[in-house]
Amino acid sequence: MKNNIEIYKSKTRKSSKLFEKSKKYHVNGVHHNIRFFEPYPFVTKSANSKFLVDIDSNKYVDYWMGHWSLILGHKPKKIINVIKKQLNYDWMHGVLNKNSIELSEKISKVVPVAEKIRYASTGTEATMYAVRLARTVTKRKIIAKIDGGWHGYTTDLLKTVNWPFSKSESSGLTDEKYIISLPYNDLENSIKILKSKKNELAAVIIEPVLGGGGCIPATKEYMFGIQEFCRKNKTVFILDEIVTGFRFRFGCLYNTMKLDPDLLTLGKIVGGGLPIGVICGKDELMKYANTEIYSKIERAYIGGGTFSANPLTMIAGNSMLSTIKNKSNQLYRKLNSFGTETRKMLDKKFDGKVITTGMGSLFLTHFLNDSICEINNATDVAKCNIKKLHDYHFHMIANDDIFFLPGKLGAFSDVHTKSDIKTMERSTDEFLTKFKK
Amino acid sequence: MKNNIEIYKSKTRKSSKLFEKSKKYHVNGVHHNIRFFEPYPFVTKSANSKFLVDIDSNKYVDYWMGHWSLILGHKPKKIINVIKKQLNYDWMHGVLNKNSIELSEKISKVVPVAEKIRYASTGTEATMYAVRLARTVTKRKIIAKIDGGWHGYTTDLLKTVNWPFSKSESSGLTDEKYIISLPYNDLENSIKILKSKKNELAAVIIEPVLGGGGCIPATKEYMFGIQEFCRKNKTVFILDEIVTGFRFRFGCLYNTMKLDPDLLTLGKIVGGGLPIGVICGKDELMKYANTEIYSKIERAYIGGGTFSANPLTMIAGNSMLSTIKNKSNQLYRKLNSFGTETRKMLDKKFDGKVITTGMGSLFLTHFLNDSICEINNATDVAKCNIKKLHDYHFHMIANDDIFFLPGKLGAFSDVHTKSDIKTMERSTDEFLTKFKK
Repeated sequence: MKNNIEIYKSKTRKSSKLFEKSKKYHVNGVHHNIRFFEPYPFVTKSANSKFLVDIDSNKYVDYWMGHWSLILGHKPKKIINVIKKQLNYDWMHGVLNKNSIELSEKISKVVPVAEKIRYASTGTEATMYAVRLARTVTKRKIIAKIDGGWHGYTTDLLKTVNWPFSKSESSGLTDEKYIISLPYNDLENSIKILKSKKNELAAVIIEPVLGGGGCIPATKEYMFGIQEFCRKNKTVFILDEIVTGFRFRFGCLYNTMKLDPDLLTLGKIVGGGLPIGVICGKDELMKYANTEIYSKIERAYIGGGTFSANPLTMIAGNSMLSTIKNKSNQLYRKLNSFGTETRKMLDKKFDGKVITTGMGSLFLTHFLNDSICEINNATDVAKCNIKKLHDYHFHMIANDDIFFLPGKLGAFSDVHTKSDIKTMERSTDEFLTKFKK
Repeated sequence: MKNNIEIYKSKTRKSSKLFEKSKKYHVNGVHHNIRFFEPYPFVTKSANSKFLVDIDSNKYVDYWMGHWSLILGHKPKKIINVIKKQLNYDWMHGVLNKNSIELSEKISKVVPVAEKIRYASTGTEATMYAVRLARTVTKRKIIAKIDGGWHGYTTDLLKTVNWPFSKSESSGLTDEKYIISLPYNDLENSIKILKSKKNELAAVIIEPVLGGGGCIPATKEYMFGIQEFCRKNKTVFILDEIVTGFRFRFGCLYNTMKLDPDLLTLGKIVGGGLPIGVICGKDELMKYANTEIYSKIERAYIGGGTFSANPLTMIAGNSMLSTIKNKSNQLYRKLNSFGTETRKMLDKKFDGKVITTGMGSLFLTHFLNDSICEINNATDVAKCNIKKLHDYHFHMIANDDIFFLPGKLGAFSDVHTKSDIKTMERSTDEFLTKFKK
């Protein structure tokens, strides 16, 4: 890949210099470990529609789309205008504002489990609150998550995120013994593990499409099996739909799957591009956070925070949901078909040497090798040729101004067109040619 | 106070109705427990300069100022314009952008301990990362905090926040045994407690002015004593300057006090009103988060997050700091003198029956009773007549459109004037007259 690195370096000279400066001030030069890639990430100066523009004026077709938050692409005009208007009223004051009520009205109409809602400012906060609430309701401590499941940086869920799952994610954690981890889509072994801790099991938290762990949809059988176990064991069933909420339809994936979670977390899309995390769920559980009902030691003390439900995020979310709703059928039909087409196209191109997983507009190509021939969970993903995936994504960045965060899944947004799939196809052809040489 | 409740109800009829709707959707009707007050909080429709305007068109002079973030008041024109301009470039994309480098340049110039910086989206995240980093560096688990210290909702620090400190803050916590708590400004007893756990003590985290715990400055003797113990014991000394950073001077309070913390958290003011949390500190500690140096199990896995260092927050913070810097001496001289004058005025009015604590532009009036005659820590605060403080603040809301979040400290901002102090004085007189009746 030396060649691609040279190509990239020669077109990102300004970024190279500015990244050196960033390293002077910032750990690893970035503000989220995954945002670093070799030899250095470019530095952006603007974004518009489907494009990210770096400070050397390279214009990348973006499939990272703000950690997959920007389903309408960068800077949708309607949302810009609404934010600009809101700036004339108020943007942060730490008191109840009507925008939050309007957003909740919208969400609860199509996410029936959201009988009660609290807004936080990040997904990390939302999952932390969900877990705290589950422990409060059940008076148990242990949380089961999925191998490769990513629910943000919260101490309560920082385990088995990155391969090898047997090794701690971080030094300096205290909660690890209260977290157990399950093999995704392997119901028999998951139930065995759950049964071994059933009397202490407060909650199971699952992404219905494993996101950071490899873009893998859960099977219906798996989800129903886990849900059934939770019901019988009086364990809280938490779905983390931060990535999947409003991604495949105007609402959540759990509705499509006919699941019945107790608590749900949302984020990304519902904030319209501004910082948000949402914890919501059935009233019979959410009420444990209510200080009118429960005393200090009985309640789940959940946020909020200084910026929670700020008018700007709330109005951006409102505008995002209104815009999506207006486009609804057409938007999701298009996005889902782009995803299907792309997965097929890539699998065909690579002629059995990859599996492109995903659902709807989300997709990720896994490079198989002798030890692996199907992708059902994050362990399968880790056994694939990760280096080749990075090389592939970097090839597209260097040669064709197509941006996937190397190694991470891509997301179609409303601003992508059929021609973008064609361009990706051509770039993949070039990669294949180089690779064969 | 029945009378005041009637007055409030009669002027906030629309809020009353909308709050009922909010309760339908939201736990306690709010997104942060402290934002609720009896009989119900008003619902805002706009804010401008020093005013919060509710949906019944009451116009309150605001001393809550967005959890004390808005040192220039609501919607400073310069920051609005900068945000509006930035909206035309990009606002969230999850890649490195130059705005974050510029903000870090500004911060590190005047906050020398910020040798390395990471941006998160909330203070809760920032303190969580600081604690994780301290545990990583020291390979110890226990964190000491202050009775009444508030560092956000993070599981790692959720203990001894609200009176009675001996009772858990929440059900559903797991980390409590790793948190010990110290009596503020009581060096002898604090050191005793620290010594009892010295071999397991990873960090001490302190707000140099206890914020939510009662607006009480730490004594120099106390801070130096704790710092000295930390040095000798190889314990990380963390200052939480989320409230105090850029509040009293263009920089942090630790510089004024000539303290030498290892890690520091910032938030509120430095985000220009947009969601932010900052973890920064000496390179020799921050490097433990660097994945180029440390492996998965050695590193401190700290964020970031989807919205970390987003261009909008970064530019708002940049603009806030530039504006403050330009006004610097004049701004802080004014704010600090307003605070001093107000504390004196209130103490005089109440004729020995209160103590108004605080520093610079922050102030809070404590209603003394037989059991308490000085305010050195949060236990003293809890022993005061809390109900009377709420009555006093509510009296001002109901009768004079002056808004303190009941029970919480007030903050002067650049948009307040001498006449606001006069109005507060007159409202206090009325309260005293009613109270005597």
